[in-house]
Order: sequence, then C-alpha cells, then structure tokens
Amino acid sequence: MSEDLATLITSMAARARAASLALAVSPTRARNAALVDLAGRIDRSHGALTAANRLDLAAAQENGLSAAQVDRLTLTPARLTQLAESVRQVAALPDPLGEVLDESTRPNGLRLRKVRVPIGVIGIIYEARPNVTVDCAVLCLKSGNASILRGGRESFESNRALAALISESIASAGLPGDCVQLIPTTDRAALDILLRLDSHIHCIIPRGGEGLIRFVAENSTIPVIKHFTGVCFVYVDKAADAAMAESIVVNAKTQRPGVCNAAEQLLLHAGVAGALLPRVGAALAAKGVRLRCDAASAAILAAAGIAHEPASMGDFTAEFLDLVVAIRVVASVDEAIATINRDGSAHSDAIVTADEAAAAAFLAGVDSAAVFWNASTRFNDGFEFGFGAEIGVSTDRLHARGPMGLRELCSYKWLVTGTGQVRE
Amino acid sequence: MSEDLATLITSMAARARAASLALAVSPTRARNAALVDLAGRIDRSHGALTAANRLDLAAAQENGLSAAQVDRLTLTPARLTQLAESVRQVAALPDPLGEVLDESTRPNGLRLRKVRVPIGVIGIIYEARPNVTVDCAVLCLKSGNASILRGGRESFESNRALAALISESIASAGLPGDCVQLIPTTDRAALDILLRLDSHIHCIIPRGGEGLIRFVAENSTIPVIKHFTGVCFVYVDKAADAAMAESIVVNAKTQRPGVCNAAEQLLLHAGVAGALLPRVGAALAAKGVRLRCDAASAAILAAAGIAHEPASMGDFTAEFLDLVVAIRVVASVDEAIATINRDGSAHSDAIVTADEAAAAAFLAGVDSAAVFWNASTRFNDGFEFGFGAEIGVSTDRLHARGPMGLRELCSYKWLVTGTGQVRE
Repeated sequence: MSEDLATLITSMAARARAASLALAVSPTRARNAALVDLAGRIDRSHGALTAANRLDLAAAQENGLSAAQVDRLTLTPARLTQLAESVRQVAALPDPLGEVLDESTRPNGLRLRKVRVPIGVIGIIYEARPNVTVDCAVLCLKSGNASILRGGRESFESNRALAALISESIASAGLPGDCVQLIPTTDRAALDILLRLDSHIHCIIPRGGEGLIRFVAENSTIPVIKHFTGVCFVYVDKAADAAMAESIVVNAKTQRPGVCNAAEQLLLHAGVAGALLPRVGAALAAKGVRLRCDAASAAILAAAGIAHEPASMGDFTAEFLDLVVAIRVVASVDEAIATINRDGSAHSDAIVTADEAAAAAFLAGVDSAAVFWNASTRFNDGFEFGFGAEIGVSTDRLHARGPMGLRELCSYKWLVTGTGQVRE
Repeated sequence: MSEDLATLITSMAARARAASLALAVSPTRARNAALVDLAGRIDRSHGALTAANRLDLAAAQENGLSAAQVDRLTLTPARLTQLAESVRQVAALPDPLGEVLDESTRPNGLRLRKVRVPIGVIGIIYEARPNVTVDCAVLCLKSGNASILRGGRESFESNRALAALISESIASAGLPGDCVQLIPTTDRAALDILLRLDSHIHCIIPRGGEGLIRFVAENSTIPVIKHFTGVCFVYVDKAADAAMAESIVVNAKTQRPGVCNAAEQLLLHAGVAGALLPRVGAALAAKGVRLRCDAASAAILAAAGIAHEPASMGDFTAEFLDLVVAIRVVASVDEAIATINRDGSAHSDAIVTADEAAAAAFLAGVDSAAVFWNASTRFNDGFEFGFGAEIGVSTDRLHARGPMGLRELCSYKWLVTGTGQVRE
C-alpha cells in the first residue's frame, strides 16, 4: 500500500513536470480561456458543489469541528458566485510571462535578456477551506505553473468536486490535463512522499496554521515559501497626530482581528503616552479590545480610569488574532525599532508620526516585509498593493517578501544570443 | 560538549542577527572601507597566511589528499595577490542596497516603494578552498548581510588566519564585529545545529560537491540556494554553420572541462550529423576528448575513421567534468528540446543554428537557467554576465536562477507612506 502510494504520488509529480513544460509555452489566451470556462462551470454547478460540500459538513458534525471551522468549510451559493467572480478577475489580469526584466549587450557582443518564466511545478499544501483549491489552481495556471494540490481531510469531497471542474476547464482549453492535480487521498503518508520529490517539484507553498507550515518546512527537501505569523506593531511616536494615531491603531487592531496583518502590539513614545494613551485606550476598549499593559502604560490607563490587565512576558511576542492588544511605553524611536526587530515577526509594522526624521529612521531600521508610515498595517495585502490577486503574504526573505501575486509565482531565465562567441 | 556546542552555535547566530540589523543600515563607505582595508591586510600577511596554510598542507599529506585537492587547498603568494585584487574589485562595485525596484501610488493615496535590502544572515557551507572564506565574506559584507562561515576541515587553519584578517578589517571600519563569523570547530555536529537555527539565519548557501549540497538541502530548515550539477548540452541544428558549430562545441567542452557550465552532452540534427560530426568529432579528439556515442553517431564516426566508444545509458545524463562527451543524433529541434529538458540539469544549454525559428523554439522551450543561441555554454557566469562578482550559479528556480552576484544576495522590503489611511 505504502509502495503503491509512493508510485502514485511520484507518477503525479512526473506528469506535472511534463505538463509544466507544455504549459510554460502555452498561449496566454488558452490559459485565460480555461479560467473563464471554469468560472462558468462554477456558476452552473452550485448543486453538485453544495452536495459534495454537504458530505464534508456531515463528517465535520461527526468529528466535532468548531463553529469557526465549519464556517470556513461551508460553500454557499453566495460564496460560489464570489469564487467564480474571483476566477474571472484573475483571467482579466495581464499575463506575467515573457516580460523582459533586464537586457544588456556585453562588450563581446553577446546579447543578454532576463525573461520572466514560470517556476515549474508548485505543490500547495492547505487545510480546511475548499475555495483554496480554486484560488491556488487558478493563480498557478495563469502564471504557467503546474500545480499539485493537497487539501485538508475536512474538505476532501468539496475539493474533489472543484478539482473535477478545473480538469474539465483545462481540457476545454486544450491545455495538458496534468497541469492541475489533486492528491486523491487524505493519507498523511502522501505528504511525506510529496515533500521529497525535489527532482519533479520546484516549490512548496503551505497555506494554513503554524503547525502545518513548520511540518512542511522541516520535512521538505523542496524549497518552501512560508506564510508565517504576523506579530505586527503600531508605534505611536512623540510627534504623532492624536486623531490619526487613534484611527490607525483602532483600524489595525479591530478592522479584522483574525488576519496576519492585524496589529497585535502597541508601542507609545514616553513623551506622548500620557496624553494619547487614554484616548487610544478608550477607543480600543469601546471596540471590545482587552488592553494588556506594561507598568508604565498600566499607570496611565489606571489614572484615566480605563480597564486594563497586566501583560505577561509572552504577550509581548504574541499573535493574538483576537480583540487583545499588548501595550508598552518606549523611550525613543530607536527603542521602538529595536523592540519590533526583536519581538515582532518581520511582517507589517507602522509608525504614526509627523516627524520626517523619525519616520525615515523607522522605515530604514525596521526589518519587516512592509513598513508603514501613517497608514494601517492592514494594507499589507496583494489586492491593496495593486497586484490584482494574491496567494498569500510571504514572511520569507528569499524570492518573495510580503504579498505574493502572479509575478511572485514566477522565476526567470537568461536568453543569450551570440554570433559564434566562445570563451577565451 | 554537545550542549556546549549548541550554545556556542546558537549564540553565534543570535549575534550575527543583531549585527545584520546594524550592517543593513551601515553607510556604503564603511562597508567599502572594510574591503579595501582587507585587501591591504592580505597583501601584507603573505607570511602568516602561508604559514597557516602549511599546517593544512601538512595535514593533507598525512590524510592522503589527492593532488587536485592539495592544489585547491594551497595558498601561494600569487594566489593571495589575486585574492586581494578580487576584494578590491568588489569594493569598487556599486552598492546594491537602497535601490527602488518598484514604485506606485494607489488610488487611496498610499505611496508604495519596493526597496532592495540585505537578506539578513547568510550561512555559507563550503569545502576545501580557503579563498572561499574571503570571497563569500566579502560578497556578503558588501551586500549588507551578516555571514556565518563553515569551511572544510582540510582548510581549517588557513580559514582561521583569513577570518582573523577579516575581523580586523571590520573593526577598522567601525562595523559590528559579529557580521562575519567563522565556526571555530570542525565538528560535524556544528553543522547539524546551524542548519536548524531558522529564527536567526535566513539563507544557507552550500558551495561544494553534490554530496554536501544534498546533505544541506535535506537537513536544513533554513531556505537553501543550491548550486548543483551542470549537465549542459550543445545542440547542433540542421541549419548550423560548420565552423561555428566546431568552435562552440570545442570551447564548451574543452576550455575548462571541470566546471559546471562546461558541455557534457552533444546533440546533432540527423540532417547535418553526417556532414558535421566527422569535423566536430575530429576537433574534439584532437583536444583529447573521448567520444561516447549512440548508434547513429557511432556509425558516422566509424565511417570517418574517428575513434569513439559506445555510450552507456548513464552517459546520457552524466556530468563528466572531464574530457569526455556523450553524443546523440536527434530528428528535430523539438526532440533536442525534449531530450535536454529530460536528461539535462537545467543549467546552461546551447543551440547552434542560422535558423531563427529553430532558435526561437529552443530559447522558449529549453527550461534552463541560461539558454544560448550561437554562443558557448561557458558564458553562464557572473563575470561574463557583467555582475562584477559571483557567489555561484544557482540551479534553483526561486529567488535567483543562474549567476548570483551582489543583487542576488539581496531581498527587498516595501515602504508604504500615507497620510492617515485606514482600511475600510
């Protein structure tokens, strides 16, 4: 059985590799046609898709999934309509392939062109949200990459139904059938095999919780692009405008607290904490946020009569993903920068200040994927950055950092044209 | 002891991380001053360096290293002069840091800038060549990266002597002392510890043989950039000019047969093999190259009276790194492309042809880091590409593909400037 599984997964990967070579030279219109066709199929298949989804939901009931998990798993007609629309949006984006990124002619006459090409074969490992099957397959297809999808056990039937539609759309556009493949088993051993097929698969993108990402990073011999935690900071500088500070802190913390670019940590300059923290703290409390404070911020809030709690040491490096914020007072912008570089996760961090020198120091010194001056951390997002789509927000420093759109799903190759040059 | 080692290596990595933050915002002139100072120290330290090197050479004799290994290990005054000169050349290159790679203003007024920054901390794992200590430290320092160097046991004393000079130069320029660190033990366990310190180290670059690279890729939880084998092809098309085909094949195969961008495989179009192979084969044989042939090419060479051998199956995917070439006849450019994508290592492959359509198909269809039209594969090199320096030739598809210079040792971050924008 285990040998059969190894044969199956290896064969899938080898076929994906072969398909990727054809896909890499496929016309833009064929890839777009497959996407437009898929959107139509999703629109016409609400019955079949929700029926498959009901099998997953029944199993979820039996297995006692939480209400939040069940919600993530559920495909409603409204969500399917939205999914089809997102596929049409990707179809409408420009083709990332073929763009000349760099060009030069060497003294010996050799002409060099650095051209954007697909990565090749991408493995996507994800958890319970079945729409990820479509999101990832579509972004890979558009960018000319073959994909191997390994979804969660909880959404197995939904994933199969969606993958069947994808296969039909690929065939309708005349693209190689193996360019999107769903692993047809929930056996965990399939993942162990997949993660070592580095001769066929060029990149692994895990999408899910920290446990999944860590497992993949530790067990893969294939390069992995991680989308890790967001321990994001807002630093309110001495020269901050009070209304702007309140607005940005409240937005970064509460507009959608469960996502990676939501703020978890608040720092205030000692010169302004006494004046601003009561206002900011009251605004956060009014939104239901619990305030976990160091001694200095606790004293200020106590004097202002605003409810708060003492922070534990763990709170100062925590990703709460909830209506909780940890608050500290710092002596300077340099202390803020050092604190963020030490306690943050290099994801999205903001300074609120009217002082250009402080802002410049912060932008240069904070070693994070996205650093904001007078704007909410919530803007670290492929759509907000104008990419038109995103597969996630990379916390790695190699290849892609921050939002990953179609271009970040590509590699490049060098095309060198000569007239018979040889090396002396 | 093992616990002490873990403490030592972890402490080195944590200090490298701290140093990297200071180095990332250090002025260009300080990094360049350290390099110019180092070049002078190398020039003034021939005595100390060759004395340390003699200790390694004595151990090499005892351990029975091959003549080629001893040669790679040896530091002569001429080689040290050349090493110092290469350091001065890196100092003279433009600073890669701070360049704005992309810039836009969003409809909500947010201004986005994508700016080149260092990766952070880079671990270099290498084998017996002590000059790699300087080459890698210098490229990392120039690009603002802290480095942790883990050299081979064979060059331990030479590496220590070179690292001591590097430390002095760093101090003389006022840069943080921990920004270049050599692991002070040859204990293999240090490597196992290092490769799992993913919270401090951001990238591992192994430089050495296939065994070392595979060990690193399989055991590292830190992203690795691999410089793997080069199974490079030259395809002589039906429309090839005879003199150019001979010149390119001979150059790609024989100009320096032991390096990764040397050709190992020769393909000839069936329509021209009968006319061209005797000439090309005779030229290769005159350079001492052994010709390992498929049936079709063997028949042509036999008819021309040129010595050759039958190829084994393994020869057609081999990286000989020697005066040996495997030869096959193919029916078309499409068969050449498919053969290269199947049997090559996606490194450097060339077509010789006067037919633009065949060249276009080859450039588009061959999925390699560098694809050449009417030029030798030997040009896949950072210096030949005009990078001014190189740390190697990446065979990966993420981050960097092909030659890696200073820019390829960098990441980027997004700087986002607003006027109080929040997300709705």
